[in-house]
Amino acid sequence: MSTRQPMNEQPCPVARSVDLIGDRWSLLIVRDAFDGMRRFSDFQRSLGVARNILSDRLKKLVDAGILQTEAAAEGSAYQAYVLTPRGESLFPVVLALRQWGEGHLFKPGEAHSLLLDQASGQPVPPLRVLDAQGQELRPDQTRVRKLDAADDA
Amino acid sequence: MSTRQPMNEQPCPVARSVDLIGDRWSLLIVRDAFDGMRRFSDFQRSLGVARNILSDRLKKLVDAGILQTEAAAEGSAYQAYVLTPRGESLFPVVLALRQWGEGHLFKPGEAHSLLLDQASGQPVPPLRVLDAQGQELRPDQTRVRKLDAADDA
Repeated sequence: MSTRQPMNEQPCPVARSVDLIGDRWSLLIVRDAFDGMRRFSDFQRSLGVARNILSDRLKKLVDAGILQTEAAAEGSAYQAYVLTPRGESLFPVVLALRQWGEGHLFKPGEAHSLLLDQASGQPVPPLRVLDAQGQELRPDQTRVRKLDAADDA
Repeated sequence: MSTRQPMNEQPCPVARSVDLIGDRWSLLIVRDAFDGMRRFSDFQRSLGVARNILSDRLKKLVDAGILQTEAAAEGSAYQAYVLTPRGESLFPVVLALRQWGEGHLFKPGEAHSLLLDQASGQPVPPLRVLDAQGQELRPDQTRVRKLDAADDA
Protein backbone atom coordinates (compact mmCIF):
# COMPACT_ATOMS: atom_id res chain seq x y z
CA MET A 1 0.00 0.00 0.00
CA SER A 2 1.42 3.32 -0.97
CA THR A 3 1.08 6.49 1.03
CA ARG A 4 0.47 8.34 -2.21
CA GLN A 5 -2.77 6.62 -3.11
CA PRO A 6 -6.15 7.34 -1.56
CA MET A 7 -7.39 4.26 0.27
CA ASN A 8 -10.26 3.74 -2.16
CA GLU A 9 -7.82 3.44 -5.05
CA GLN A 10 -5.59 0.91 -3.29
CA PRO A 11 -5.02 -2.34 -5.14
CA CYS A 12 -5.50 -4.18 -1.83
CA PRO A 13 -9.11 -5.30 -1.36
CA VAL A 14 -8.66 -5.35 2.43
CA ALA A 15 -7.73 -1.66 2.33
CA ARG A 16 -10.78 -0.75 0.26
CA SER A 17 -13.12 -2.68 2.54
CA VAL A 18 -11.58 -1.16 5.64
CA ASP A 19 -11.84 2.30 4.11
CA LEU A 20 -15.56 1.82 3.65
CA ILE A 21 -16.63 -0.08 6.75
CA GLY A 22 -13.58 -0.18 9.01
CA ASP A 23 -14.96 1.90 11.81
CA ARG A 24 -16.80 0.92 14.93
CA TRP A 25 -20.16 2.45 14.12
CA SER A 26 -20.41 1.22 10.54
CA LEU A 27 -19.62 -2.33 11.60
CA LEU A 28 -22.12 -2.22 14.45
CA ILE A 29 -24.84 -0.70 12.25
CA VAL A 30 -24.31 -3.56 9.79
CA ARG A 31 -24.47 -6.04 12.66
CA ASP A 32 -27.75 -4.52 13.86
CA ALA A 33 -29.14 -4.56 10.32
CA PHE A 34 -28.40 -8.31 10.15
CA ASP A 35 -30.35 -8.65 13.41
CA GLY A 36 -33.33 -7.06 11.68
CA MET A 37 -33.03 -3.53 12.99
CA ARG A 38 -34.42 -0.97 10.55
CA ARG A 39 -35.22 2.37 12.15
CA PHE A 40 -32.99 5.29 12.99
CA SER A 41 -34.31 5.44 16.54
CA ASP A 42 -33.67 1.73 17.06
CA PHE A 43 -30.09 1.99 15.82
CA GLN A 44 -29.60 4.98 18.05
CA ARG A 45 -30.94 3.19 21.11
CA SER A 46 -28.87 0.11 20.34
CA LEU A 47 -25.62 1.92 19.77
CA GLY A 48 -25.90 4.89 22.09
CA VAL A 49 -24.28 6.97 19.38
CA ALA A 50 -24.82 10.68 18.74
CA ARG A 51 -27.54 11.37 16.17
CA ASN A 52 -25.23 13.29 13.84
CA ILE A 53 -22.68 10.47 13.81
CA LEU A 54 -25.40 7.89 13.20
CA SER A 55 -26.82 10.01 10.35
CA ASP A 56 -23.39 10.31 8.81
CA ARG A 57 -22.68 6.59 8.99
CA LEU A 58 -26.10 5.59 7.66
CA LYS A 59 -25.68 7.97 4.74
CA LYS A 60 -22.22 6.57 4.04
CA LEU A 61 -23.57 3.03 4.10
CA VAL A 62 -26.43 3.98 1.77
CA ASP A 63 -24.03 5.78 -0.58
CA ALA A 64 -21.83 2.68 -0.58
CA GLY A 65 -24.77 0.50 -1.59
CA ILE A 66 -24.64 -1.49 1.65
CA LEU A 67 -27.96 -0.21 3.01
CA GLN A 68 -30.98 1.09 1.14
CA THR A 69 -33.85 3.14 2.43
CA GLU A 70 -37.50 2.27 2.17
CA ALA A 71 -40.69 3.46 3.85
CA ALA A 72 -40.74 2.03 7.38
CA ALA A 73 -44.35 0.94 6.87
CA GLU A 74 -47.07 1.60 4.34
CA GLY A 75 -47.87 5.29 4.38
CA SER A 76 -45.24 5.92 7.04
CA ALA A 77 -43.13 9.05 6.90
CA TYR A 78 -40.32 7.17 8.61
CA GLN A 79 -37.50 5.66 6.62
CA ALA A 80 -36.23 2.19 7.24
CA TYR A 81 -32.69 1.08 6.48
CA VAL A 82 -32.27 -2.40 5.10
CA LEU A 83 -29.31 -4.35 3.81
CA THR A 84 -28.89 -4.57 0.05
CA PRO A 85 -27.54 -7.79 -1.49
CA ARG A 86 -24.10 -6.16 -1.32
CA GLY A 87 -24.69 -5.49 2.37
CA GLU A 88 -25.91 -9.04 2.95
CA SER A 89 -22.67 -10.33 1.51
CA LEU A 90 -20.93 -8.83 4.54
CA PHE A 91 -22.30 -11.79 6.51
CA PRO A 92 -18.91 -13.58 6.70
CA VAL A 93 -17.25 -10.37 7.94
CA VAL A 94 -19.69 -9.92 10.80
CA LEU A 95 -19.67 -13.64 11.60
CA ALA A 96 -15.87 -13.74 11.66
CA LEU A 97 -15.81 -10.79 14.07
CA ARG A 98 -18.44 -12.51 16.22
CA GLN A 99 -16.64 -15.82 16.35
CA TRP A 100 -13.27 -14.27 17.08
CA GLY A 101 -14.85 -12.31 19.92
CA GLU A 102 -16.54 -15.43 21.27
CA GLY A 103 -13.27 -17.30 21.26
CA HIS A 104 -11.02 -14.64 22.72
CA LEU A 105 -12.83 -11.83 24.47
CA PHE A 106 -14.96 -13.60 27.07
CA LYS A 107 -13.91 -15.16 30.33
CA PRO A 108 -14.53 -18.88 30.64
CA GLY A 109 -18.20 -19.33 31.38
CA GLU A 110 -19.03 -15.68 30.70
CA ALA A 111 -22.31 -15.50 28.82
CA HIS A 112 -22.65 -13.88 25.40
CA SER A 113 -25.19 -13.60 22.65
CA LEU A 114 -25.16 -16.43 20.13
CA LEU A 115 -25.86 -16.66 16.42
CA LEU A 116 -28.07 -19.69 15.89
CA ASP A 117 -28.93 -21.72 12.83
CA GLN A 118 -32.72 -21.31 12.94
CA ALA A 119 -33.36 -24.75 11.52
CA SER A 120 -31.33 -26.63 14.11
CA GLY A 121 -31.34 -24.14 16.96
CA GLN A 122 -27.60 -24.76 17.25
CA PRO A 123 -24.86 -22.12 17.06
CA VAL A 124 -23.56 -21.43 13.57
CA PRO A 125 -20.38 -23.52 13.18
CA PRO A 126 -17.02 -21.72 13.12
CA LEU A 127 -16.02 -20.23 9.78
CA ARG A 128 -13.11 -22.17 8.35
CA VAL A 129 -10.61 -21.11 5.72
CA LEU A 130 -10.44 -24.02 3.29
CA ASP A 131 -8.45 -24.76 0.17
CA ALA A 132 -10.06 -25.93 -3.06
CA GLN A 133 -10.04 -29.52 -1.74
CA GLY A 134 -11.82 -28.54 1.46
CA GLN A 135 -8.73 -28.83 3.65
CA GLU A 136 -8.09 -26.26 6.36
CA LEU A 137 -5.72 -23.54 5.21
CA ARG A 138 -3.45 -21.82 7.73
CA PRO A 139 -2.24 -18.24 7.20
CA ASP A 140 1.32 -19.46 6.68
CA GLN A 141 0.12 -21.64 3.81
CA THR A 142 -0.99 -18.57 1.91
CA ARG A 143 0.75 -15.59 0.40
CA VAL A 144 -0.36 -12.29 -1.06
CA ARG A 145 0.43 -11.71 -4.70
CA LYS A 146 0.84 -7.99 -5.02
CA LEU A 147 0.28 -6.07 -8.20
CA ASP A 148 3.44 -4.13 -7.66
CA ALA A 149 5.64 -4.37 -4.60
CA ALA A 150 5.82 -0.61 -4.37
CA ASP A 151 2.08 -0.09 -4.45
CA ASP A 152 0.55 -2.82 -2.38
CA ALA A 153 1.19 -4.49 0.91
CA MET B 1 -26.51 -3.44 23.25
CA SER B 2 -27.10 -0.97 26.01
CA THR B 3 -25.81 2.55 26.05
CA ARG B 4 -25.00 2.09 29.73
CA GLN B 5 -22.35 -0.58 29.26
CA PRO B 6 -18.81 0.02 28.10
CA MET B 7 -18.23 -1.74 24.80
CA ASN B 8 -15.76 -4.21 26.31
CA GLU B 9 -18.43 -5.43 28.73
CA GLN B 10 -21.07 -5.94 26.06
CA PRO B 11 -22.56 -9.41 25.86
CA CYS B 12 -22.31 -9.19 22.06
CA PRO B 13 -19.07 -10.71 20.76
CA VAL B 14 -19.22 -8.55 17.62
CA ALA B 15 -19.23 -5.43 19.79
CA ARG B 16 -16.22 -6.61 21.80
CA SER B 17 -14.25 -7.46 18.66
CA VAL B 18 -15.13 -4.17 17.05
CA ASP B 19 -14.14 -2.33 20.21
CA LEU B 20 -10.68 -3.87 20.04
CA ILE B 21 -9.91 -3.96 16.34
CA GLY B 22 -12.72 -2.04 14.64
CA ASP B 23 -10.65 0.82 13.34
CA ARG B 24 -8.88 1.31 10.07
CA TRP B 25 -5.32 1.24 11.33
CA SER B 26 -5.64 -1.75 13.59
CA LEU B 27 -7.22 -3.81 10.82
CA LEU B 28 -4.54 -2.78 8.33
CA ILE B 29 -1.71 -3.45 10.79
CA VAL B 30 -3.11 -6.95 11.31
CA ARG B 31 -3.34 -7.38 7.53
CA ASP B 32 0.29 -6.33 7.12
CA ALA B 33 1.34 -8.66 9.94
CA PHE B 34 -0.30 -11.55 8.07
CA ASP B 35 1.72 -10.52 5.04
CA GLY B 36 4.89 -10.95 7.11
CA MET B 37 5.55 -7.34 8.01
CA ARG B 38 7.35 -6.99 11.33
CA ARG B 39 9.07 -3.64 11.78
CA PHE B 40 7.70 -0.30 12.86
CA SER B 41 9.28 1.45 9.89
CA ASP B 42 7.78 -1.06 7.47
CA PHE B 43 4.29 -0.65 8.92
CA GLN B 44 4.74 3.09 8.74
CA ARG B 45 5.81 3.02 5.11
CA SER B 46 2.99 0.65 4.21
CA LEU B 47 0.26 2.59 5.94
CA GLY B 48 1.45 6.15 5.62
CA VAL B 49 0.19 6.73 9.15
CA ALA B 50 1.59 9.19 11.68
CA ARG B 51 4.18 7.66 14.00
CA ASN B 52 2.24 8.47 17.16
CA ILE B 53 -0.91 6.83 15.83
CA LEU B 54 1.03 3.77 14.70
CA SER B 55 2.71 3.54 18.13
CA ASP B 56 -0.64 3.79 19.84
CA ARG B 57 -2.26 1.09 17.69
CA LEU B 58 0.71 -1.28 17.98
CA LYS B 59 0.66 -0.90 21.75
CA LYS B 60 -3.07 -1.52 21.83
CA LEU B 61 -2.64 -4.66 19.72
CA VAL B 62 0.19 -5.89 21.96
CA ASP B 63 -1.87 -5.16 25.09
CA ALA B 64 -4.76 -7.08 23.54
CA GLY B 65 -2.53 -10.10 22.97
CA ILE B 66 -2.90 -9.88 19.19
CA LEU B 67 0.72 -8.94 18.51
CA GLN B 68 3.82 -9.67 20.55
CA THR B 69 7.20 -8.02 20.39
CA GLU B 70 10.49 -9.78 19.84
CA ALA B 71 13.99 -8.71 18.85
CA ALA B 72 13.95 -7.93 15.12
CA ALA B 73 17.14 -9.96 14.68
CA GLU B 74 19.75 -11.50 16.93
CA GLY B 75 21.44 -8.73 18.86
CA SER B 76 19.23 -6.12 17.22
CA ALA B 77 17.96 -3.18 19.20
CA TYR B 78 14.90 -3.02 16.97
CA GLN B 79 11.66 -4.62 18.01
CA ALA B 80 9.63 -6.74 15.69
CA TYR B 81 5.88 -7.18 15.98
CA VAL B 82 4.51 -10.61 15.24
CA LEU B 83 1.05 -12.12 15.46
CA THR B 84 0.31 -14.27 18.49
CA PRO B 85 -1.90 -17.35 18.11
CA ARG B 86 -4.81 -15.09 19.12
CA GLY B 87 -3.79 -12.68 16.38
CA GLU B 88 -3.45 -15.50 13.85
CA SER B 89 -7.01 -16.51 14.58
CA LEU B 90 -8.10 -13.20 13.02
CA PHE B 91 -7.34 -14.83 9.65
CA PRO B 92 -11.05 -15.29 8.76
CA VAL B 93 -11.77 -11.65 9.64
CA VAL B 94 -9.07 -10.32 7.31
CA LEU B 95 -9.95 -12.83 4.60
CA ALA B 96 -13.65 -11.94 4.79
CA LEU B 97 -12.80 -8.25 4.41
CA ARG B 98 -10.52 -9.09 1.47
CA GLN B 99 -13.06 -11.20 -0.33
CA TRP B 100 -15.88 -8.73 0.18
CA GLY B 101 -13.65 -5.99 -1.22
CA GLU B 102 -12.69 -8.16 -4.19
CA GLY B 103 -16.32 -8.86 -4.94
CA HIS B 104 -17.72 -5.37 -4.54
CA LEU B 105 -15.14 -2.61 -4.60
CA PHE B 106 -13.32 -3.12 -7.89
CA LYS B 107 -14.47 -2.34 -11.36
CA PRO B 108 -14.79 -5.28 -13.73
CA GLY B 109 -11.28 -6.13 -14.86
CA GLU B 110 -9.63 -3.79 -12.37
CA ALA B 111 -6.56 -5.50 -10.94
CA HIS B 112 -6.10 -6.17 -7.23
CA SER B 113 -3.78 -8.10 -4.99
CA LEU B 114 -4.70 -11.74 -4.45
CA LEU B 115 -4.35 -14.13 -1.55
CA LEU B 116 -3.01 -17.38 -2.94
CA ASP B 117 -2.91 -20.89 -1.57
CA GLN B 118 0.85 -21.46 -1.72
CA ALA B 119 0.51 -25.15 -2.51
CA SER B 120 -1.73 -24.71 -5.54
CA GLY B 121 -0.88 -21.15 -6.54
CA GLN B 122 -4.63 -20.55 -6.82
CA PRO B 123 -6.64 -17.87 -5.00
CA VAL B 124 -7.98 -18.92 -1.62
CA PRO B 125 -11.59 -20.01 -2.21
CA PRO B 126 -14.40 -17.77 -0.90
CA LEU B 127 -15.25 -18.18 2.76
CA ARG B 128 -18.66 -19.80 3.11
CA VAL B 129 -21.00 -19.78 6.06
CA LEU B 130 -22.07 -23.38 6.49
CA ASP B 131 -24.40 -25.21 8.83
CA ALA B 132 -23.40 -28.33 10.74
CA GLN B 133 -24.20 -30.46 7.67
CA GLY B 134 -21.99 -28.35 5.44
CA GLN B 135 -24.87 -26.62 3.68
CA GLU B 136 -24.66 -22.91 2.89
CA LEU B 137 -26.36 -20.79 5.52
CA ARG B 138 -27.94 -17.46 4.55
CA PRO B 139 -28.25 -14.61 7.05
CA ASP B 140 -32.05 -14.97 7.08
CA GLN B 141 -31.63 -18.59 8.17
CA THR B 142 -29.94 -17.47 11.36
CA ARG B 143 -30.99 -15.48 14.39
CA VAL B 144 -29.21 -13.94 17.33
CA ARG B 145 -30.12 -15.27 20.75
CA LYS B 146 -29.60 -12.39 23.09
CA LEU B 147 -28.82 -12.78 26.74
CA ASP B 148 -31.37 -10.17 27.65
CA ALA B 149 -33.32 -8.13 25.17
CA ALA B 150 -32.59 -4.96 27.12
CA ASP B 151 -28.85 -5.48 27.18
CA ASP B 152 -27.86 -6.86 23.84
CA ALA B 153 -28.60 -6.16 20.23
